[in-house]
Amino acid sequence: MILARVLGNVVATKKHPSYTGHKTLIVQPVDEYGNDTGTSFVACDSVQAGPGDVVLVEQEGNCARQILGTLKDPFHSVICGIVDRVKLEG
Amino acid sequence: MILARVLGNVVATKKHPSYTGHKTLIVQPVDEYGNDTGTSFVACDSVQAGPGDVVLVEQEGNCARQILGTLKDPFHSVICGIVDRVKLEG
Amino acid sequence: MILARVLGNVVATKKHPSYTGHKTLIVQPVDEYGNDTGTSFVACDSVQAGPGDVVLVEQEGNCARQILGTLKDPFHSVICGIVDRVKLEG
Amino acid sequence: MILARVLGNVVATKKHPSYTGHKTLIVQPVDEYGNDTGTSFVACDSVQAGPGDVVLVEQEGNCARQILGTLKDPFHSVICGIVDRVKLEG
Amino acid sequence: MILARVLGNVVATKKHPSYTGHKTLIVQPVDEYGNDTGTSFVACDSVQAGPGDVVLVEQEGNCARQILGTLKDPFHSVICGIVDRVKLEG
Repeated sequence: MILARVLGNVVATKKHPSYTGHKTLIVQPVDEYGNDTGTSFVACDSVQAGPGDVVLVEQEGNCARQILGTLKDPFHSVICGIVDRVKLEG
Repeated sequence: MILARVLGNVVATKKHPSYTGHKTLIVQPVDEYGNDTGTSFVACDSVQAGPGDVVLVEQEGNCARQILGTLKDPFHSVICGIVDRVKLEG
Repeated sequence: MILARVLGNVVATKKHPSYTGHKTLIVQPVDEYGNDTGTSFVACDSVQAGPGDVVLVEQEGNCARQILGTLKDPFHSVICGIVDRVKLEG
Repeated sequence: MILARVLGNVVATKKHPSYTGHKTLIVQPVDEYGNDTGTSFVACDSVQAGPGDVVLVEQEGNCARQILGTLKDPFHSVICGIVDRVKLEG
Repeated sequence: MILARVLGNVVATKKHPSYTGHKTLIVQPVDEYGNDTGTSFVACDSVQAGPGDVVLVEQEGNCARQILGTLKDPFHSVICGIVDRVKLEG
Protein backbone atom coordinates (compact mmCIF):
# COMPACT_ATOMS: atom_id res chain seq x y z
CA MET A 1 0.00 0.00 0.00
CA ILE A 2 1.02 3.57 -0.49
CA LEU A 3 -0.07 6.85 1.01
CA ALA A 4 -1.88 9.26 -1.30
CA ARG A 5 -4.00 12.40 -1.12
CA VAL A 6 -7.37 12.57 -2.89
CA LEU A 7 -7.36 15.32 -5.52
CA GLY A 8 -10.83 15.00 -7.02
CA ASN A 9 -12.66 12.79 -9.44
CA VAL A 10 -12.67 11.88 -13.08
CA VAL A 11 -15.75 12.20 -15.27
CA ALA A 12 -15.88 9.69 -18.12
CA THR A 13 -19.25 9.30 -19.83
CA LYS A 14 -17.93 6.84 -22.37
CA LYS A 15 -16.42 3.90 -20.53
CA HIS A 16 -16.43 0.16 -20.42
CA PRO A 17 -19.71 -1.09 -18.82
CA SER A 18 -17.91 -2.82 -15.96
CA TYR A 19 -16.94 0.58 -14.51
CA THR A 20 -20.52 1.82 -14.19
CA GLY A 21 -21.57 2.37 -10.57
CA HIS A 22 -18.06 2.62 -9.16
CA LYS A 23 -16.70 5.82 -7.64
CA THR A 24 -13.29 6.55 -9.05
CA LEU A 25 -11.03 9.23 -7.60
CA ILE A 26 -7.81 10.78 -8.76
CA VAL A 27 -5.10 10.54 -6.10
CA GLN A 28 -1.60 11.96 -5.66
CA PRO A 29 1.00 9.70 -3.98
CA VAL A 30 2.59 11.33 -0.90
CA ASP A 31 5.41 10.41 1.47
CA GLU A 32 5.23 10.09 5.26
CA TYR A 33 5.30 13.91 5.60
CA GLY A 34 2.49 14.46 3.10
CA ASN A 35 4.82 15.69 0.35
CA ASP A 36 3.96 14.77 -3.23
CA THR A 37 5.94 11.89 -4.73
CA GLY A 38 5.47 10.49 -8.21
CA THR A 39 2.49 10.92 -10.47
CA SER A 40 -1.26 11.04 -9.85
CA PHE A 41 -3.42 8.08 -10.83
CA VAL A 42 -7.01 6.90 -10.62
CA ALA A 43 -8.28 4.50 -7.92
CA CYS A 44 -11.61 2.97 -6.98
CA ASP A 45 -12.95 4.02 -3.55
CA SER A 46 -14.08 1.49 -0.91
CA VAL A 47 -14.17 3.72 2.20
CA GLN A 48 -16.10 6.88 1.24
CA ALA A 49 -12.98 9.00 0.89
CA GLY A 50 -13.25 12.61 -0.24
CA PRO A 51 -11.06 15.40 -1.63
CA GLY A 52 -8.18 16.33 0.68
CA ASP A 53 -8.18 13.03 2.58
CA VAL A 54 -4.87 11.20 2.95
CA VAL A 55 -5.65 7.60 2.11
CA LEU A 56 -4.15 4.12 1.89
CA VAL A 57 -4.16 2.76 -1.66
CA GLU A 58 -3.56 -0.87 -2.53
CA GLN A 59 -2.17 -1.32 -6.05
CA GLU A 60 -2.60 -4.96 -6.99
CA GLY A 61 -5.45 -6.51 -8.90
CA ASN A 62 -6.04 -9.47 -6.61
CA CYS A 63 -6.11 -7.24 -3.54
CA ALA A 64 -8.50 -4.86 -5.27
CA ARG A 65 -10.85 -7.67 -6.21
CA GLN A 66 -10.86 -9.03 -2.65
CA ILE A 67 -11.66 -5.64 -1.18
CA LEU A 68 -14.37 -4.90 -3.72
CA GLY A 69 -15.87 -8.33 -3.03
CA THR A 70 -16.11 -9.60 -6.57
CA LEU A 71 -13.77 -11.32 -8.97
CA LYS A 72 -15.17 -9.38 -11.89
CA ASP A 73 -14.32 -5.77 -11.11
CA PRO A 74 -11.52 -4.66 -13.39
CA PHE A 75 -9.74 -2.44 -10.90
CA HIS A 76 -6.08 -2.52 -10.09
CA SER A 77 -5.95 0.30 -7.55
CA VAL A 78 -8.36 0.68 -4.64
CA ILE A 79 -8.58 3.13 -1.74
CA CYS A 80 -8.85 0.97 1.37
CA GLY A 81 -8.35 3.30 4.35
CA ILE A 82 -8.42 6.93 5.46
CA VAL A 83 -5.27 7.89 7.37
CA ASP A 84 -5.74 9.65 10.72
CA ARG A 85 -2.03 10.16 11.26
CA VAL A 86 1.43 8.78 10.53
CA LYS A 87 3.51 8.10 13.65
CA LEU A 88 7.24 8.26 12.94
CA GLU A 89 9.63 6.74 15.48
CA GLY A 90 13.10 5.27 15.83
CA MET B 1 -5.81 3.23 -13.79
CA ILE B 2 -3.86 6.14 -15.12
CA LEU B 3 -4.71 9.09 -17.32
CA ALA B 4 -3.12 9.15 -20.78
CA ARG B 5 -3.48 10.95 -24.09
CA VAL B 6 -3.78 8.97 -27.34
CA LEU B 7 -0.87 9.80 -29.67
CA GLY B 8 -1.58 7.54 -32.63
CA ASN B 9 -1.20 3.93 -33.58
CA VAL B 10 1.47 1.36 -34.19
CA VAL B 11 1.71 -0.61 -37.43
CA ALA B 12 3.20 -4.06 -37.03
CA THR B 13 2.73 -6.44 -39.94
CA LYS B 14 4.75 -9.19 -38.36
CA LYS B 15 3.24 -10.02 -34.99
CA HIS B 16 2.07 -12.90 -32.88
CA PRO B 17 -1.28 -14.23 -34.24
CA SER B 18 -3.13 -13.50 -31.00
CA TYR B 19 -2.83 -9.75 -31.70
CA THR B 20 -4.62 -9.89 -35.05
CA GLY B 21 -7.92 -7.98 -35.07
CA HIS B 22 -7.16 -5.84 -32.04
CA LYS B 23 -6.77 -2.07 -32.29
CA THR B 24 -3.63 -0.98 -30.48
CA LEU B 25 -2.86 2.65 -29.77
CA ILE B 26 0.21 4.43 -28.51
CA VAL B 27 -0.59 6.57 -25.45
CA GLN B 28 1.29 9.16 -23.39
CA PRO B 29 0.66 9.17 -19.62
CA VAL B 30 -0.51 12.59 -18.34
CA ASP B 31 -1.22 14.07 -14.91
CA GLU B 32 -4.44 15.68 -13.70
CA TYR B 33 -3.62 18.88 -15.67
CA GLY B 34 -2.92 17.04 -18.92
CA ASN B 35 0.87 17.44 -18.64
CA ASP B 36 3.03 14.58 -19.91
CA THR B 37 4.47 12.26 -17.24
CA GLY B 38 6.63 9.24 -17.89
CA THR B 39 7.01 7.36 -21.14
CA SER B 40 4.58 6.44 -23.93
CA PHE B 41 3.41 2.84 -24.24
CA VAL B 42 1.02 0.73 -26.32
CA ALA B 43 -2.50 -0.23 -25.14
CA CYS B 44 -5.43 -2.15 -26.58
CA ASP B 45 -8.59 -0.06 -27.13
CA SER B 46 -12.02 -1.10 -25.78
CA VAL B 47 -13.94 2.21 -26.13
CA GLN B 48 -13.29 3.50 -29.65
CA ALA B 49 -10.77 6.11 -28.53
CA GLY B 50 -9.00 8.27 -31.09
CA PRO B 51 -5.93 10.51 -31.38
CA GLY B 52 -6.01 13.46 -28.95
CA ASP B 53 -8.47 11.83 -26.53
CA VAL B 54 -7.57 11.77 -22.85
CA VAL B 55 -8.31 8.24 -21.71
CA LEU B 56 -8.33 5.94 -18.69
CA VAL B 57 -5.87 3.06 -19.05
CA GLU B 58 -5.87 -0.01 -16.85
CA GLN B 59 -2.45 -1.67 -16.60
CA GLU B 60 -2.93 -5.15 -15.21
CA GLY B 61 -3.33 -8.35 -17.16
CA ASN B 62 -6.32 -9.72 -15.26
CA CYS B 63 -8.19 -6.43 -15.62
CA ALA B 64 -7.39 -6.32 -19.31
CA ARG B 65 -8.65 -9.84 -19.86
CA GLN B 66 -11.91 -9.09 -18.00
CA ILE B 67 -12.54 -5.97 -20.05
CA LEU B 68 -11.71 -7.66 -23.34
CA GLY B 69 -14.01 -10.55 -22.38
CA THR B 70 -11.64 -13.42 -22.96
CA LEU B 71 -8.97 -15.13 -20.96
CA LYS B 72 -6.84 -15.59 -24.03
CA ASP B 73 -5.99 -12.06 -25.11
CA PRO B 74 -2.38 -11.36 -24.26
CA PHE B 75 -2.81 -7.71 -23.33
CA HIS B 76 -1.56 -6.06 -20.20
CA SER B 77 -2.76 -2.51 -20.90
CA VAL B 78 -6.25 -1.60 -22.05
CA ILE B 79 -8.01 1.72 -22.70
CA CYS B 80 -11.27 1.52 -20.74
CA GLY B 81 -12.75 5.04 -20.74
CA ILE B 82 -12.64 8.42 -22.45
CA VAL B 83 -12.26 11.29 -19.96
CA ASP B 84 -14.70 14.19 -20.25
CA ARG B 85 -13.06 16.21 -17.50
CA VAL B 86 -11.04 15.97 -14.28
CA LYS B 87 -12.67 17.77 -11.33
CA LEU B 88 -10.08 18.88 -8.74
CA GLU B 89 -11.32 19.83 -5.27
CA GLY B 90 -10.22 20.10 -1.66
CA MET C 1 12.55 -8.57 -2.00
CA ILE C 2 13.97 -5.21 -1.16
CA LEU C 3 15.73 -3.77 1.84
CA ALA C 4 13.86 -1.10 3.79
CA ARG C 5 14.00 0.67 7.15
CA VAL C 6 10.93 0.83 9.39
CA LEU C 7 9.89 4.46 9.95
CA GLY C 8 6.80 4.05 12.10
CA ASN C 9 3.19 3.15 11.71
CA VAL C 10 0.04 4.46 10.14
CA VAL C 11 -3.16 5.03 12.09
CA ALA C 12 -6.31 4.60 10.04
CA THR C 13 -9.56 4.30 12.01
CA LYS C 14 -11.71 4.15 8.93
CA LYS C 15 -10.55 1.27 6.78
CA HIS C 16 -11.80 -1.73 4.91
CA PRO C 17 -12.72 -4.52 7.43
CA SER C 18 -10.19 -6.96 5.98
CA TYR C 19 -7.35 -4.82 7.37
CA THR C 20 -8.54 -5.04 10.99
CA GLY C 21 -6.10 -6.87 13.24
CA HIS C 22 -3.09 -6.50 10.97
CA LYS C 23 -0.05 -4.45 11.99
CA THR C 24 0.93 -2.12 9.17
CA LEU C 25 4.18 -0.20 9.16
CA ILE C 26 5.53 2.57 7.00
CA VAL C 27 8.92 1.66 5.53
CA GLN C 28 11.61 3.52 3.57
CA PRO C 29 13.47 1.53 0.86
CA VAL C 30 17.26 1.55 1.37
CA ASP C 31 20.24 0.30 -0.59
CA GLU C 32 22.96 -2.10 0.56
CA TYR C 33 24.63 0.73 2.56
CA GLY C 34 21.42 1.75 4.29
CA ASN C 35 20.96 4.90 2.18
CA ASP C 36 17.41 5.93 1.28
CA THR C 37 16.25 5.05 -2.23
CA GLY C 38 12.83 5.75 -3.66
CA THR C 39 9.67 6.51 -1.73
CA SER C 40 8.22 5.22 1.53
CA PHE C 41 5.27 2.82 1.45
CA VAL C 42 3.13 0.77 3.81
CA ALA C 43 3.69 -2.96 4.46
CA CYS C 44 2.12 -5.62 6.66
CA ASP C 45 4.42 -7.07 9.32
CA SER C 46 4.98 -10.83 9.77
CA VAL C 47 8.12 -10.83 11.95
CA GLN C 48 7.50 -8.35 14.80
CA ALA C 49 9.64 -5.64 13.25
CA GLY C 50 9.91 -2.25 14.95
CA PRO C 51 10.97 1.33 14.16
CA GLY C 52 14.60 1.58 13.04
CA ASP C 53 14.89 -2.06 11.97
CA VAL C 54 16.27 -2.78 8.51
CA VAL C 55 13.92 -5.37 7.05
CA LEU C 56 13.30 -7.54 4.01
CA VAL C 57 10.05 -6.64 2.23
CA GLU C 58 8.40 -8.84 -0.39
CA GLN C 59 6.24 -6.86 -2.81
CA GLU C 60 4.00 -9.31 -4.63
CA GLY C 61 0.47 -10.26 -3.71
CA ASN C 62 0.87 -14.02 -4.03
CA CYS C 63 4.00 -13.99 -1.87
CA ALA C 64 2.25 -11.84 0.71
CA ARG C 65 -0.72 -14.18 0.87
CA GLN C 66 1.54 -17.23 1.30
CA ILE C 67 3.46 -15.59 4.12
CA LEU C 68 0.34 -14.37 5.89
CA GLY C 69 -1.13 -17.85 5.56
CA THR C 70 -4.45 -16.96 4.00
CA LEU C 71 -5.68 -16.32 0.51
CA LYS C 72 -7.97 -13.57 1.73
CA ASP C 73 -5.64 -10.95 3.10
CA PRO C 74 -5.53 -8.04 0.71
CA PHE C 75 -1.87 -7.17 1.17
CA HIS C 76 0.65 -6.65 -1.55
CA SER C 77 3.69 -5.82 0.57
CA VAL C 78 4.81 -7.80 3.60
CA ILE C 79 7.80 -7.55 5.92
CA CYS C 80 9.29 -11.05 6.01
CA GLY C 81 12.68 -10.73 7.73
CA ILE C 82 14.80 -8.51 9.98
CA VAL C 83 18.29 -7.93 8.54
CA ASP C 84 21.25 -8.54 10.84
CA ARG C 85 23.81 -7.39 8.29
CA VAL C 86 24.56 -7.12 4.58
CA LYS C 87 27.82 -8.80 3.55
CA LEU C 88 29.30 -7.23 0.40
CA GLU C 89 31.97 -9.16 -1.49
CA GLY C 90 33.53 -9.55 -4.92
CA MET D 1 3.17 -3.32 -24.33
CA ILE D 2 6.08 -1.03 -24.85
CA LEU D 3 8.25 -0.14 -27.82
CA ALA D 4 11.87 -1.27 -27.70
CA ARG D 5 14.86 -1.70 -29.99
CA VAL D 6 16.75 -4.99 -30.15
CA LEU D 7 20.38 -4.49 -29.07
CA GLY D 8 21.76 -8.01 -29.29
CA ASN D 9 21.70 -11.20 -27.30
CA VAL D 10 22.88 -12.58 -24.02
CA VAL D 11 25.04 -15.70 -23.76
CA ALA D 12 24.53 -17.66 -20.56
CA THR D 13 25.94 -21.18 -20.50
CA LYS D 14 24.95 -21.81 -16.93
CA LYS D 15 21.22 -21.29 -16.61
CA HIS D 16 18.10 -22.88 -15.24
CA PRO D 17 17.04 -25.81 -17.54
CA SER D 18 13.68 -24.24 -18.36
CA TYR D 19 15.45 -21.55 -20.41
CA THR D 20 17.18 -23.99 -22.76
CA GLY D 21 16.00 -23.67 -26.37
CA HIS D 22 14.58 -20.19 -26.02
CA LYS D 23 16.05 -17.23 -27.89
CA THR D 24 16.55 -14.35 -25.49
CA LEU D 25 17.42 -10.86 -26.69
CA ILE D 26 18.50 -7.71 -24.91
CA VAL D 27 16.23 -4.78 -25.75
CA GLN D 28 16.30 -1.02 -25.09
CA PRO D 29 12.93 0.68 -24.41
CA VAL D 30 12.25 3.57 -26.82
CA ASP D 31 9.55 6.24 -27.12
CA GLU D 32 7.34 6.98 -30.14
CA TYR D 33 10.25 8.77 -31.86
CA GLY D 34 12.70 5.93 -31.31
CA ASN D 35 14.58 7.74 -28.52
CA ASP D 36 15.92 5.64 -25.67
CA THR D 37 13.88 5.66 -22.45
CA GLY D 38 14.69 3.73 -19.30
CA THR D 39 16.97 0.74 -18.98
CA SER D 40 17.68 -2.26 -21.21
CA PHE D 41 16.30 -5.67 -20.24
CA VAL D 42 16.12 -9.23 -21.55
CA ALA D 43 13.06 -10.63 -23.38
CA CYS D 44 12.13 -13.91 -25.03
CA ASP D 45 11.51 -13.68 -28.80
CA SER D 46 8.34 -15.03 -30.47
CA VAL D 47 8.55 -13.30 -33.88
CA GLN D 48 12.09 -13.85 -35.20
CA ALA D 49 13.24 -10.34 -34.33
CA GLY D 50 16.83 -9.31 -34.93
CA PRO D 51 19.30 -6.60 -33.90
CA GLY D 52 18.13 -3.08 -34.84
CA ASP D 53 14.45 -4.02 -35.10
CA VAL D 54 11.95 -1.87 -33.22
CA VAL D 55 9.65 -4.33 -31.50
CA LEU D 56 6.57 -4.59 -29.30
CA VAL D 57 7.33 -6.15 -25.92
CA GLU D 58 4.69 -7.44 -23.53
CA GLN D 59 5.83 -7.40 -19.90
CA GLU D 60 3.47 -9.58 -17.91
CA GLY D 61 3.91 -13.23 -17.04
CA ASN D 62 0.44 -14.40 -18.02
CA CYS D 63 0.66 -12.67 -21.39
CA ALA D 64 4.08 -14.16 -21.98
CA ARG D 65 2.88 -17.66 -21.19
CA GLN D 66 -0.11 -17.30 -23.54
CA ILE D 67 2.08 -16.12 -26.39
CA LEU D 68 4.68 -18.82 -25.83
CA GLY D 69 1.90 -21.41 -25.71
CA THR D 70 2.79 -23.11 -22.46
CA LEU D 71 2.08 -22.48 -18.83
CA LYS D 72 5.55 -23.65 -17.88
CA ASP D 73 7.85 -21.14 -19.51
CA PRO D 74 9.26 -18.87 -16.85
CA PHE D 75 9.32 -15.69 -18.92
CA HIS D 76 7.94 -12.35 -17.90
CA SER D 77 8.86 -10.34 -21.00
CA VAL D 78 8.23 -11.48 -24.58
CA ILE D 79 8.76 -9.83 -27.96
CA CYS D 80 5.41 -10.16 -29.76
CA GLY D 81 5.63 -7.92 -32.85
CA ILE D 82 8.03 -6.09 -35.17
CA VAL D 83 7.04 -2.46 -35.66
CA ASP D 84 6.81 -1.18 -39.25
CA ARG D 85 6.02 2.38 -38.24
CA VAL D 86 4.43 4.54 -35.56
CA LYS D 87 1.72 6.88 -36.91
CA LEU D 88 1.31 9.98 -34.73
CA GLU D 89 -1.86 12.04 -35.14
CA GLY D 90 -4.11 14.49 -33.34
CA MET E 1 14.53 -10.63 -17.04
CA ILE E 2 17.12 -8.05 -16.21
CA LEU E 3 20.88 -8.10 -15.96
CA ALA E 4 22.36 -7.64 -12.51
CA ARG E 5 25.67 -8.06 -10.67
CA VAL E 6 25.85 -10.04 -7.44
CA LEU E 7 27.03 -7.81 -4.58
CA GLY E 8 26.92 -10.18 -1.64
CA ASN E 9 24.40 -11.69 0.69
CA VAL E 10 21.99 -10.68 3.39
CA VAL E 11 22.02 -12.20 6.86
CA ALA E 12 18.62 -12.29 8.54
CA THR E 13 18.31 -14.51 11.60
CA LYS E 14 14.74 -13.53 12.27
CA LYS E 15 12.69 -14.29 9.21
CA HIS E 16 9.51 -15.97 8.11
CA PRO E 17 9.97 -19.81 8.22
CA SER E 18 9.31 -20.20 4.49
CA TYR E 19 12.65 -18.50 3.73
CA THR E 20 14.74 -21.01 5.71
CA GLY E 21 17.11 -23.03 3.50
CA HIS E 22 17.07 -20.62 0.58
CA LYS E 23 20.17 -18.72 -0.50
CA THR E 24 19.34 -15.07 -0.97
CA LEU E 25 21.75 -12.65 -2.61
CA ILE E 26 21.78 -8.89 -2.94
CA VAL E 27 22.10 -7.83 -6.59
CA GLN E 28 22.67 -4.53 -8.42
CA PRO E 29 20.85 -4.06 -11.75
CA VAL E 30 23.23 -3.26 -14.63
CA ASP E 31 22.82 -2.28 -18.27
CA GLU E 32 24.28 -4.03 -21.33
CA TYR E 33 27.70 -2.46 -20.61
CA GLY E 34 27.73 -3.54 -16.97
CA ASN E 35 27.00 -0.03 -15.66
CA ASP E 36 24.81 0.26 -12.56
CA THR E 37 21.17 1.19 -13.16
CA GLY E 38 18.52 1.57 -10.50
CA THR E 39 18.61 0.20 -6.98
CA SER E 40 19.91 -3.03 -5.47
CA PHE E 41 17.45 -5.68 -4.35
CA VAL E 42 17.40 -9.21 -2.93
CA ALA E 43 16.87 -12.33 -5.07
CA CYS E 44 16.78 -16.07 -4.48
CA ASP E 45 19.53 -18.04 -6.25
CA SER E 46 18.83 -21.07 -8.47
CA VAL E 47 22.17 -21.39 -10.32
CA GLN E 48 24.91 -21.21 -7.66
CA ALA E 49 25.84 -17.63 -8.48
CA GLY E 50 28.50 -15.84 -6.45
CA PRO E 51 29.73 -12.31 -5.73
CA GLY E 52 30.87 -10.45 -8.87
CA ASP E 53 28.88 -12.63 -11.28
CA VAL E 54 26.67 -10.88 -13.83
CA VAL E 55 23.38 -12.76 -13.71
CA LEU E 56 19.93 -12.95 -15.26
CA VAL E 57 17.17 -12.17 -12.76
CA GLU E 58 13.50 -12.90 -13.35
CA GLN E 59 11.20 -10.62 -11.38
CA GLU E 60 7.76 -12.16 -11.37
CA GLY E 61 6.25 -14.40 -8.75
CA ASN E 62 4.88 -17.05 -11.08
CA CYS E 63 8.19 -17.35 -12.91
CA ALA E 64 10.03 -17.59 -9.62
CA ARG E 65 7.76 -20.35 -8.37
CA GLN E 66 8.19 -22.33 -11.60
CA ILE E 67 11.97 -22.08 -11.44
CA LEU E 68 12.12 -22.98 -7.76
CA GLY E 69 9.85 -25.94 -8.44
CA THR E 70 7.22 -25.30 -5.81
CA LEU E 71 4.10 -23.20 -5.60
CA LYS E 72 4.82 -22.40 -1.98
CA ASP E 73 8.04 -20.44 -2.08
CA PRO E 74 7.29 -16.81 -1.42
CA PHE E 75 9.89 -15.36 -3.78
CA HIS E 76 9.30 -12.73 -6.39
CA SER E 77 12.84 -12.41 -7.75
CA VAL E 78 15.06 -15.32 -8.70
CA ILE E 79 18.52 -15.57 -10.25
CA CYS E 80 18.11 -17.95 -13.21
CA GLY E 81 21.34 -17.67 -15.25
CA ILE E 82 24.98 -16.58 -15.12
CA VAL E 83 25.90 -14.35 -18.05
CA ASP E 84 29.02 -15.25 -20.04
CA ARG E 85 28.80 -12.23 -22.31
CA VAL E 86 26.43 -9.73 -23.91
CA LYS E 87 26.75 -9.56 -27.71
CA LEU E 88 25.65 -6.15 -29.07
CA GLU E 89 24.88 -5.88 -32.79
CA GLY E 90 22.93 -3.85 -35.29
